[in-house]
Amino acid sequence: MTEHPFGRHNLAYGTAVLDGAPRLVVRMDDDVVDLATACAALRPDLVELVDAAVLNPLLEAGPESWRALRTAVRAWHDDDLASYRRPLAGLELRLPFEVADYVDFYASEHHATNVGRLFRPDGEPLTPNWKHLPIGYHGRSGTVVVSGTDIVRPAGQLRTRAAPRFGPSERLDFEAEIGFVLGNATERAHPIPLEQAREHIFGMCLVNDWSARDIQAWETVPLGPFLGKSFATSLSAWVVPLDAFDDARVRPPDRDESLLPYLDDARLEPWGFDVELTVELNGIPISRPPFASMYWTAAQMLAHMTVNGASLRAGDLFASGTVSGAHEGQLGSLLELSRGGTEPLRLADGTERGFLLDGDEVVIRASVPARESRPELGLGEVRGRILPHAR
Amino acid sequence: MTEHPFGRHNLAYGTAVLDGAPRLVVRMDDDVVDLATACAALRPDLVELVDAAVLNPLLEAGPESWRALRTAVRAWHDDDLASYRRPLAGLELRLPFEVADYVDFYASEHHATNVGRLFRPDGEPLTPNWKHLPIGYHGRSGTVVVSGTDIVRPAGQLRTRAAPRFGPSERLDFEAEIGFVLGNATERAHPIPLEQAREHIFGMCLVNDWSARDIQAWETVPLGPFLGKSFATSLSAWVVPLDAFDDARVRPPDRDESLLPYLDDARLEPWGFDVELTVELNGIPISRPPFASMYWTAAQMLAHMTVNGASLRAGDLFASGTVSGAHEGQLGSLLELSRGGTEPLRLADGTERGFLLDGDEVVIRASVPARESRPELGLGEVRGRILPHAR
Repeated sequence: MTEHPFGRHNLAYGTAVLDGAPRLVVRMDDDVVDLATACAALRPDLVELVDAAVLNPLLEAGPESWRALRTAVRAWHDDDLASYRRPLAGLELRLPFEVADYVDFYASEHHATNVGRLFRPDGEPLTPNWKHLPIGYHGRSGTVVVSGTDIVRPAGQLRTRAAPRFGPSERLDFEAEIGFVLGNATERAHPIPLEQAREHIFGMCLVNDWSARDIQAWETVPLGPFLGKSFATSLSAWVVPLDAFDDARVRPPDRDESLLPYLDDARLEPWGFDVELTVELNGIPISRPPFASMYWTAAQMLAHMTVNGASLRAGDLFASGTVSGAHEGQLGSLLELSRGGTEPLRLADGTERGFLLDGDEVVIRASVPARESRPELGLGEVRGRILPHAR
Repeated sequence: MTEHPFGRHNLAYGTAVLDGAPRLVVRMDDDVVDLATACAALRPDLVELVDAAVLNPLLEAGPESWRALRTAVRAWHDDDLASYRRPLAGLELRLPFEVADYVDFYASEHHATNVGRLFRPDGEPLTPNWKHLPIGYHGRSGTVVVSGTDIVRPAGQLRTRAAPRFGPSERLDFEAEIGFVLGNATERAHPIPLEQAREHIFGMCLVNDWSARDIQAWETVPLGPFLGKSFATSLSAWVVPLDAFDDARVRPPDRDESLLPYLDDARLEPWGFDVELTVELNGIPISRPPFASMYWTAAQMLAHMTVNGASLRAGDLFASGTVSGAHEGQLGSLLELSRGGTEPLRLADGTERGFLLDGDEVVIRASVPARESRPELGLGEVRGRILPHAR
């Protein structure tokens, strides 16, 4: 099927600066519609959900409101909408929601295996827990930035054979990930079972979890990644509603270990998604990570994240971890593509990259590819350029 | 000197429910004063800083505003204040600020050594990085709760000799810590040098970083603590301004490794604090952790946390990590007090504890003890009772 990837089957939400003020918009093809203005005329009962600069009030309102709004917007006639559409081109886009807590998972078996081999060459690549639970950790919400934001190269402690030295990271990397935006807050001690994931996962976006591998390697034992990640995390400008992915659901890979009941998804609707990512470095394609290859699903990540009684807030975000497929051209980080920097990647422009250089621009794009039964569904892009360390 | 620990030398801030609405208050002895009401009458120019339910607008406003308000409140005469004072007894207290990002450090050498011996019995107790940088990680902001909130025992995956099983934690613990509340936001790529820590650290509070040791042990490699911590973190109801601690400053312990310049505090005002903690279990004193023994200072933690370019938001919180002294009676967690549960602690009521039982109540208190030159300075308490797992 051919249709615009941001057509009526998508209806992604974003925040655009309109007449000087950030406003919540819905994307239609290459236009945006100011939701509060359109609702005021066409569906006044929904205005309070969308009269905001960000998605958070809608996220708070819960799944019935999400569906009511989506149904309403899908039903609007082109004639009715004509006066509310504004061309996207040239508009400034902002982060479409205020991030409450940010959790990053590690859900790709291929990525975890590749990283395990590089970081722990003498041990098993996967830790003993890996196939029993989706490994994750909390990241820094305050440094989540929107696509297009420049990323200043971080500095930090770098290991040497003697004492550590201080300097700009020499192993700066990207990580191509999918993010899940949450709403419908819960109380503490109320875990979210797999069956209720749809009531809390509002939509999906793209994430570049920038990583300074040298800072990370030195700091990470025993409490995990910290400054190697916390300088910046980039998000796509569009959040695509979960309902738009109904035709993209696929079974996740077979599980090698039997799962505890709270993670056992064998009898559920499939929570894998046929989303294909592409990574470009300075305009040159370098990888095509397949999201369908992820071992752990979003529903499992959410069930695990809350099974200890942790509550959820509207605006919580979790990311999948680096998406890497089984094959050479499907790796979601330079760490893997260059084998820890030992085999620099040869780019089509004749240059080589072990890790990112100042001035490099990384663009990660994703979509559900078109099939006979479905049109292409766009997630847009997450873009960022590396600026030199300033001091 | 004898004076009320929450006298005019303290002026701690909190949030109390007054006439049905949460309001920002300042504590005076055993009373509270609604700041917006008092300022409206006595210092109208300061009302906008305090006309709120939480500290965040004041935290945003920055250190000149913090000092202007503190100076004003100190100068108010008892006669002027009489009509604004309300007895604290019986008031409901709330979390005094909205937590933006929460970072937990690991700054006690004694604690890190004790834990390292228990978790990695065959290795060096301290990891090679420990004396070069303050180890830390991001925790979950959304589950930070105010003192007095009940804590439901978390459940999760527990390691067995075969596959993991699921169940309520059997090794539930407390961690006695000091928290630092931040304001005066910064941009990305603008690290905060040691010399500027005073411009961003607003005040101090007490933290109980509840920990499920069994959940933590299974999940923690390779990305650090996650569900073993994220179910709840309790905070004292009072934030004591940093300026109140001027007479409590002490030199931190001698450093065993020379520090990189951004952490080298040898020529600075001392950033250790002579704060003494006490831990009670069901009313029985079990430990007296000395905060002055901490290896890393708050200024160093803040400098480290931002040296990679991570920005700061008003409402960011970081905690010191468990405060444990060198001696048996100074350990800040049951894990240490019971040597990983192998030597249960004998309580004065004749019972024993390896870890916390349902119904147990932990109360951590702290103050700067009185000396000839200074009155006692109170930080109050952080209190929490364990409820049984519900399912």
